[in-house]
Order: sequence, then C-alpha cells, then structure tokens
Amino acid sequence: MSVYLSPLLRAVEPYVPGEQPRDRRYVKLNTNESPYPPSPAVLEAAERAAGSLNLYCDPTALRLREAAAEAFGVSADMVLPVNGSDEILNFAFMAYGHAGIAVPDISYGFYAVLAELHRVHRREIPLRPDFSIDHRDWLNLGRTAVLANPNAPTGLALPLSEVEEIVASNRENVVVIDEAYVDFGAGSAVSLTKKYDNLLVTRTFSKSHSLAGARLGFGIASPGLIADLTAVKDSTNPYNVNAVTQAAGIAAFGDNDYYMANCRAVAAQRDRTAARLRELGFEVTDSRANFLFARHPGVSGGELYEKLRERGILVRHFSAAPIAEYNRVTVGTGEQMDVFVRAVEEILA
Amino acid sequence: MSVYLSPLLRAVEPYVPGEQPRDRRYVKLNTNESPYPPSPAVLEAAERAAGSLNLYCDPTALRLREAAAEAFGVSADMVLPVNGSDEILNFAFMAYGHAGIAVPDISYGFYAVLAELHRVHRREIPLRPDFSIDHRDWLNLGRTAVLANPNAPTGLALPLSEVEEIVASNRENVVVIDEAYVDFGAGSAVSLTKKYDNLLVTRTFSKSHSLAGARLGFGIASPGLIADLTAVKDSTNPYNVNAVTQAAGIAAFGDNDYYMANCRAVAAQRDRTAARLRELGFEVTDSRANFLFARHPGVSGGELYEKLRERGILVRHFSAAPIAEYNRVTVGTGEQMDVFVRAVEEILA
Repeated sequence: MSVYLSPLLRAVEPYVPGEQPRDRRYVKLNTNESPYPPSPAVLEAAERAAGSLNLYCDPTALRLREAAAEAFGVSADMVLPVNGSDEILNFAFMAYGHAGIAVPDISYGFYAVLAELHRVHRREIPLRPDFSIDHRDWLNLGRTAVLANPNAPTGLALPLSEVEEIVASNRENVVVIDEAYVDFGAGSAVSLTKKYDNLLVTRTFSKSHSLAGARLGFGIASPGLIADLTAVKDSTNPYNVNAVTQAAGIAAFGDNDYYMANCRAVAAQRDRTAARLRELGFEVTDSRANFLFARHPGVSGGELYEKLRERGILVRHFSAAPIAEYNRVTVGTGEQMDVFVRAVEEILA
Repeated sequence: MSVYLSPLLRAVEPYVPGEQPRDRRYVKLNTNESPYPPSPAVLEAAERAAGSLNLYCDPTALRLREAAAEAFGVSADMVLPVNGSDEILNFAFMAYGHAGIAVPDISYGFYAVLAELHRVHRREIPLRPDFSIDHRDWLNLGRTAVLANPNAPTGLALPLSEVEEIVASNRENVVVIDEAYVDFGAGSAVSLTKKYDNLLVTRTFSKSHSLAGARLGFGIASPGLIADLTAVKDSTNPYNVNAVTQAAGIAAFGDNDYYMANCRAVAAQRDRTAARLRELGFEVTDSRANFLFARHPGVSGGELYEKLRERGILVRHFSAAPIAEYNRVTVGTGEQMDVFVRAVEEILA
C-alpha cells in the first residue's frame, strides 16, 4: 500500500478469489464453475459481437434487459445487468448500506469485504449448529438484510415461504437475496419482486449458465430499486457490461433448456457424490447448490485439501475457525466426480 | 428513486453517456469511437476465449498485465487492467479522494459525478479563456489532482514538461493524468511513473485500440499506487475484466502497429477537417485528440447539433453555459468527415 491511500481503506482486507494456478492441469473443483461449455448459439453471438467492438456497447443494455425480463417474468425496468453479480452486491451496499446490514455469520465472504469497504455497520446473525438459517432470526431487523439462498459455502436453502416472511417483515428496509446458486435446486424469490418493492434478488450466469469468464449478473427488483442501482451504475461505470457479454447473455436466455439440463445433470452428480461421501464417513450438508460442503472425522479439512491438491484436484478450503474442518467441492461432470471420489478413497485408505 | 436509497446518494446526478439511438443509421461522430474494426488477431483471440467462458477469467489478469507492461515500458506490478478507464477513475476517487480533488472547470463530466458520489471535495480550476490549462495553477495544490491530457472536450494538450512540473510539485498527493486520447498526438506521461510514485496515468483501449465495446482500460503507476488500486478492485469486483476482453487486449498489444497507423490516419483526418472548418468560419481548438471542438459565429451549437442530427449525423453537444456554442465532433474516416463537412456546408448555406 502507498502512503497516499485513504486511511479509511487501509483496514480493508480484500476478497481472495479461489486460486487459479497455472503450474499444472488440475481437476478444478474450487470455484463453482460449470463443467459445461457455453452453448453453440452463445459462441456464435460472442463471435458476431466481436466484429464491432470498436463501437460502445449499449449502456442501457436494453435488449439484454428485455431478454432477462421475459425469462424472469418481470418487466425490463425491473432488471439491471451487471459485470458479474459481485457488482450488483457492491451497488446494493452503496445504495442501502447506510441502514446497516445483517448477514449470516457464515456466508459468502465478499459481504464482509463490501461492508468494510463502504464502512457499513455489519450485524452477523449466527447460523444454527447444523449451519441452517433460522428465518425467525431475520424478521423485523430494522436494517438491510443480505442473505444467500442457497447459502454459501453450506449449500443449504431456505424454503420460499420463509424467504417471503423475511421480506414481508422488513418492509422498512431492503432485503437482498443472493441467488447465485438457485438454479441447482432451490426456490427462487424472483416472482416476489412484483409483490414487494423492498426485495432485491441477485443472479449470476457464472455458475448455471456457463459464463463465469464473461462476467454477467443481474439485479431483479421493483422499478424503484432498479432505478437506484442504475443510478449507482451510471455514476461509477456507465458501460459496465461489454458488448460480447451482452450478446452472449441474450443468446444464453434463448438456450435456457440447454442450461437447465446442465443444472439437472450437476444436481444429479451432486446427490450421487454426496451419497458416496456419506458412505465413506463424511458429514455432508444437504446442498441445493453446485457444490458439496463436507468434513470427515478421520482427516482434517486442511489435510484433505492438501492431499487432493497433490493429486491434481483443487477444492476450496476456508481456514476460518467454524468451517476449517470442511471443504467446499464444486460439482463437475460424472467423470470429474469419479476422479475426486477415487482420490478421497485413496486418501482415507 | 426508491424510498430506500441512501440520502447521501439522492443528490448525485449520474453521468449521461452519449446517445446510442436505434431509430435509424447515423454517421456516429458523438462518442469518440474508432471508425476502424479490431485487428483480425483480436477477433481470433476473442473467438478462442469464448470457447472456455464457463471458466473464470484470471482475476489478476497476469498475461494481460505482462503484455501491457512490455508495451508501456514498465513492470507488471505497475499496471492494473480495468473494465474501461471509468473504472480506474472510480477506484482512484475511492483511494485518493479523501484529500479533496482538483479538476479543470471544463473537462470530462464524469469527474464531477465521481466526486459527488464519493462525497469528495472538488475544487474546479478555471481554464484560460482559450480553454488551455495554465499549468502554474496546478502546482502545490495540497490535494489530489485529476487532469485529462489531452483535455476533453477541448482536445488541448499540455506539453509533457508541464505535466512533469505538476507531478513534481505535488509529491504529497496523487496526480491522475487521464490519457484516454493521448495516442492521437499528445506526449504520454507513462515513463514518468517510474520516476514519481505519486503519478497515476490512466489509459483506455476504447478509442485508439478499437475496443470501446470490450471495455478495457489501464492504470499505470508506481507499484504502491497499483497495490492500493488493486485492493479496491479486489474489494469491489475481483474478476473485473472478463476473459474475452483480456484475450482481446493481449492480442491488441501484439498488433500495436495496426492501431498506431489507425491513430495517424485519424489525426490526419482531424487536421484536414479542422482546416476546412476554419475556412468555413469555425473557431476550432488545436485538438490533439480524436475529436474536434468547434463553434461558428453564424449558428448556435444547439442548432448545428440538431441540423446535423436531422441529416443523420450525430455529434456531441454539451448544453452547459461556457461550451454551449460548441460541438464535439469525433473524427472518423475520410469518407465520414466528407459527409460531415458537406452537411455543415449545407447548413451554413
């Protein structure tokens, strides 16, 4: 850090993304990517868009918003496309952080970073010992709520009825439901955005729609909230979603069947792998996401992570206390999961 | 705006990008894009990258930083790639705005938006009546300086020696030199980043490198400043530059001769068009950028803008008082400039 940096930013610990090592080829099960490539239509759209990259993209992303609106069953003024869903979270903290926020004590680590960065008061609401969220802890909070559903890195999902209770009981404040992983088996709150003007649902195409490298996320909310967040966008980076990504996103909405089939395949591999891990003595949460969260009484989380890495398999290990015994394992193809399970069997043997 | 929006953001007037109308085909001379497409190598690189968009891009953009470092003659820890240079400006205001900023009273409108957004105290330093910057007004400021060179929308450039005097006299604070337009004929301060650890140079590939739609900008500075700005990046959007754009950027650095030839062609058209406009009675600044800034005693700025628009030619008109008589005209191909000049001749006739 330089001597010039704002004293307010000195204490901020930036988010550390999952490692992307280049030293060898890994079976990459550490950043919750889709194992499937984008659909052919998406590749074609991306190539077509590349030809006119000398022109600015549409800063209002109108066609993409229209495609998203149709897919989400809302109007185009209820959608804001962003450069990955981290960006809409950042905008939400800027727009609604003044009320203070509530987050689960174990969740996506980026929320704490954003709170530090924007000097937002953060109240951490403990999970139950089994990592589940007790939705009654989230009623009448008197502050902005930020909740991942399914939660990360646990994969546990709240039923939609409980999400609605949270939103309904916090009408004085915004409730952000981060649905990065919802397409793998949880119930989406998107339809509730038409009923509750305090609800912001965030989505990403990084996981379910094979576009992690394209950076595409969405905020879906009442027109009022979307107007707020669009103003923040236009005050920080008006052309936030580039032309190739806009085109890829439109094409991906058109191929939704392909992506939903991929999500079902991932969910099937998840459940099959979870069953096998339980047979091997693992404690595995009931994940509704595209990852598993598991620990074994016979091997520490850090040790399992290291031994998998030696075998060319990357998973994500968080060294913070309550979850240090666990690893988060992205669900890939059947073949990848077989490689992973065989490696685990070897390590346990 | 919603009732939930932070009171601190209510007063912020978002930046209004140049219009991108879809009602008809225009000769688009309003957003300073390059009239030339990306080079074939860039298109190939973009297509290749699209195939693995299911994987996250490198959040450290290492290969792109290495390519940029080589091109700029600095080390890779002195470069931060960003999602368009608006993003690096945003980061700089977050990191260094606490000292207050100084900006020219006529310059890129986004600086004022960022200052409002981040509640940064803004001192506007007047241009001379001929729109030039008197660099002596910028010495020993006691605050962060933000200066576009060439300046927008005037196109006027400071000589490098005067830029260096500004940087050298403000060692207690960061000096940001926004070189969005430098490739069209001004002297770059990039080499000074090795001498002065308080200098941040910002660049964009939107204009000179035909990548406006890809969103690619750079911060170039001492390793200390780059560490600050990277921490801000990692605290707001760790994967800020997507995989296609990283690949396109690397390829564009490899084709620098193509882009520099395009810049020279644009500069030649600029000077030819400026000469013709002067013959027609226009007052035209001595632009070193890829646009002209001109007014005519016989027709108001707003009227000329409207009459050009009726003829299918878009230019940029700013309605604020001191420059309302002017229009900013992006320099395109010779053909486009002929169409523009003929339309102007008709309007004046």
